[in-house]
Amino acid sequence: MQLKASELCEILDGQLEGNANAVIERVSKIEEGDHASLSFLANPKYESHIYDTDSAIVLVSENFQPEKELKTTLIRVKDPYSAFTLILSKFFDAVLHKKGIEQPSFIDETAKVGNDIYVGAFAYVGVNASIGDNVKIYPNAYVGDNAIIGDNTVLYAGVRVYSGCVVGSNCIIHSGTVIGSDGFGFAPQKDGSYKKIPQTGNVVIEDHVEIGANCSIDRATMGSTLIKRGVKLDNLIQIAHNVEIGENTVIAAQTGISGSTKLGKQNVVGGQVGFAGHIVIADGSQFGAQSGILGSIKEPYKGWMGSPAGELKEHLKAQAVFRNLPKLDKQVAELRREIAQIVDTLNNKETNS
Amino acid sequence: MQLKASELCEILDGQLEGNANAVIERVSKIEEGDHASLSFLANPKYESHIYDTDSAIVLVSENFQPEKELKTTLIRVKDPYSAFTLILSKFFDAVLHKKGIEQPSFIDETAKVGNDIYVGAFAYVGVNASIGDNVKIYPNAYVGDNAIIGDNTVLYAGVRVYSGCVVGSNCIIHSGTVIGSDGFGFAPQKDGSYKKIPQTGNVVIEDHVEIGANCSIDRATMGSTLIKRGVKLDNLIQIAHNVEIGENTVIAAQTGISGSTKLGKQNVVGGQVGFAGHIVIADGSQFGAQSGILGSIKEPYKGWMGSPAGELKEHLKAQAVFRNLPKLDKQVAELRREIAQIVDTLNNKETNS
Amino acid sequence: MQLKASELCEILDGQLEGNANAVIERVSKIEEGDHASLSFLANPKYESHIYDTDSAIVLVSENFQPEKELKTTLIRVKDPYSAFTLILSKFFDAVLHKKGIEQPSFIDETAKVGNDIYVGAFAYVGVNASIGDNVKIYPNAYVGDNAIIGDNTVLYAGVRVYSGCVVGSNCIIHSGTVIGSDGFGFAPQKDGSYKKIPQTGNVVIEDHVEIGANCSIDRATMGSTLIKRGVKLDNLIQIAHNVEIGENTVIAAQTGISGSTKLGKQNVVGGQVGFAGHIVIADGSQFGAQSGILGSIKEPYKGWMGSPAGELKEHLKAQAVFRNLPKLDKQVAELRREIAQIVDTLNNKETNS
Repeated sequence: MQLKASELCEILDGQLEGNANAVIERVSKIEEGDHASLSFLANPKYESHIYDTDSAIVLVSENFQPEKELKTTLIRVKDPYSAFTLILSKFFDAVLHKKGIEQPSFIDETAKVGNDIYVGAFAYVGVNASIGDNVKIYPNAYVGDNAIIGDNTVLYAGVRVYSGCVVGSNCIIHSGTVIGSDGFGFAPQKDGSYKKIPQTGNVVIEDHVEIGANCSIDRATMGSTLIKRGVKLDNLIQIAHNVEIGENTVIAAQTGISGSTKLGKQNVVGGQVGFAGHIVIADGSQFGAQSGILGSIKEPYKGWMGSPAGELKEHLKAQAVFRNLPKLDKQVAELRREIAQIVDTLNNKETNS
Repeated sequence: MQLKASELCEILDGQLEGNANAVIERVSKIEEGDHASLSFLANPKYESHIYDTDSAIVLVSENFQPEKELKTTLIRVKDPYSAFTLILSKFFDAVLHKKGIEQPSFIDETAKVGNDIYVGAFAYVGVNASIGDNVKIYPNAYVGDNAIIGDNTVLYAGVRVYSGCVVGSNCIIHSGTVIGSDGFGFAPQKDGSYKKIPQTGNVVIEDHVEIGANCSIDRATMGSTLIKRGVKLDNLIQIAHNVEIGENTVIAAQTGISGSTKLGKQNVVGGQVGFAGHIVIADGSQFGAQSGILGSIKEPYKGWMGSPAGELKEHLKAQAVFRNLPKLDKQVAELRREIAQIVDTLNNKETNS
Repeated sequence: MQLKASELCEILDGQLEGNANAVIERVSKIEEGDHASLSFLANPKYESHIYDTDSAIVLVSENFQPEKELKTTLIRVKDPYSAFTLILSKFFDAVLHKKGIEQPSFIDETAKVGNDIYVGAFAYVGVNASIGDNVKIYPNAYVGDNAIIGDNTVLYAGVRVYSGCVVGSNCIIHSGTVIGSDGFGFAPQKDGSYKKIPQTGNVVIEDHVEIGANCSIDRATMGSTLIKRGVKLDNLIQIAHNVEIGENTVIAAQTGISGSTKLGKQNVVGGQVGFAGHIVIADGSQFGAQSGILGSIKEPYKGWMGSPAGELKEHLKAQAVFRNLPKLDKQVAELRREIAQIVDTLNNKETNS
């Protein structure tokens, strides 16, 4: 893939400064670029790199003012990062999926399989499972009985879809993720042991969902655990039984959501966050990393932080005082001494007068 | 499966109100039921649903007092949720395990295998491994050399049991869980590097244990990492080398237990909790989500919370003050001003008198 | 394997007390030893065990002073634990790796494979992949197209190395770990949905790295996510795209590192720690469990704790006050009452005088 500066300029609707015939063959970080690299500068923090980059072309913002001479060609655009990702998506998407059925693989004779699929060696497709067109099932992946995988979806190596679960179309699921394991439901018995409550439901994942590596999404006790259209989950995330996640919500790694909790749409959840069970979270809620959310949130489009989580600003204020607690503690001790002294003085006066 | 209201009533020892001939064919959440559904109402929070549910029969508590007219048939029982899970277990346990050996699978000729087992395609059973009667080993699961799997145990797709580890009978282990990986033991060297300490022990899991998806249970340095009878582990849990977990302890998702720590029996541990290494936790201890436990706990059957964890009530009190820290901080600043003023006033008087 | 006390003494350069002809055949914890066991006593906490251990030989420190009579043979050494791990490594390393290619396995005809390798059944090696000498690829493991695995490296059952990723020599990677899944990069669109940003880079793991079970290491957007020589990662760890981890850094279980963050060398990171993205951490930094690190750290070789993390000592002081917050709160309320009273008194005097 070769792209000329003038072509890029046209695609991005940018302004060129430098060599219109400069040619790039790859994309690179600005500090790692060479004579055939396209790079970008978005964060002013990295500006120093532009003065000694070897990249042939750098995308910069419209109002970038160089402080030194530049040897690279610039293309000025509104949003350099977005422009860069556009070029990335259009010309450098490295994933070349395979086609065909590798052997040995196991596709039950009752399974329905679409056209142009890839099934890697040692992949398994169970009884009555349904695999859409253009689906990619990488080696060692498992699709249980009666499971449904929509068109164009990719299951990477070692993904597990338990029986009866549904994955929509245009989804990407990374290695090691488990969809449809039993929800964590046990009834305490008189002798102290626990009796398993059957988990008779399934998991339903709608279209355009991406799920990272080694996540666990449990099937519902009854009904469905539901991941709605456009949701993006990072790695090592726990989704308990009967959870619902609203459209276009994004969740960072190692977050856990307890049973029956419902997240609205357009939530943005940081890493290592925990949600209690049976709560309802408003649309557009945003949660700082490591927060713990114990109750429902009704007001939409607000920021939250801390464990237990409070409003973002309130939490930051309390956190600031926390750091000064030893000083506050000393001040109170001092005040107590001073007041004891004052009371003493006043009493003495009383006595003396 | 069809069940009549009168039959249910007899099984549950309940009182019927409505149509004794009502028939159900499935179980549903009360808000999702239809003309053939059995549902239950346990939490008063969901009471509104009972007035417009389409479920044919609803299990309610003995003293439920409807506020409006009902079209559904009621069965009154002591504990509607327990009654419901009883029906669920008895008639609607959806898991129909397979039988037989799918091909290709790999069972070493030296392995001992019991009767009525299922071995899915691409499952692996190593040298001298021992597989009990009625065991189910799903596709892509791995049982290492000399490992032992007890009767009636289920290993779902992609479970890994390393060599020499022991899983009891009547256990359920979900996909992606790893049993017997090396404990995290390294001896620091003078040059700053680390030398691996061999992990020569194994993992022993007793009977009636259920382990969720994508957990990691490390083998002991010497001896055994031990998960005792009746323990229930949720997903993505970390159990380090030489840990012991007492009978009937339940642990929620994403909790981690550091090396050589011993949990007593009947503990109840929330999600995302962390235990330090080499500590001993009394029977019946209960831990709130996201707690961090740094020291041993000797007093049994108490609640703990926070990081570092304190007694539940004490922690909640401190937490309540934490939220008001900015106010407390202001109050102290104000007191300091007031006292400075008083001291000033007194000094002036002193001077004036 | 049989070892005499006199031999052990020579290997360890220790002093013998007791039976020079005592013979051991195994290693045991001091409380579990028998007539053929070698044990050690390092932590004085466990001293009571030495008076009734059945172990034939116990390694103790040079200055150990028994308080009662002993029936076991002692070998006095400088550091009993190090001495013990030396014997463990030298004579009792239980891992006997296999050789040869089990069938069925899948090795693409274009892959280069070294000498003396083990490829377990249902393992997969993709197009143009390169496998070094003496590599062990356990059953159900996956090595994607163009991936490179260095000499002597072990991939346990079900490890996934995505296409184009590089694992150095003498590495150990435990089951379920995923190397090279897509970084979590999405560009928000005007309609509220997110567009995937292609992740065109890879993961590079240098030599002598050990990675536990069920970790996720994402490939870089561009360039490489980099795990340097000698790094040791525990289980269930999340490493985001473009992260770099310096030489000989060790990280405990369930920690997560966000995108583009760079950890220096010789860091020691506790469990369940979270690092924000795009920060730089100095060499030798140490982090307590469950810490949350929000900003860069420039000063090397210091301890940090808390979320957000502060200097270890400062954090412990603040934490100590936190536990006493209810008391502090009461003290402030009392001070407020007392001062109001004093002000009252003074005002009355004013009025009366």
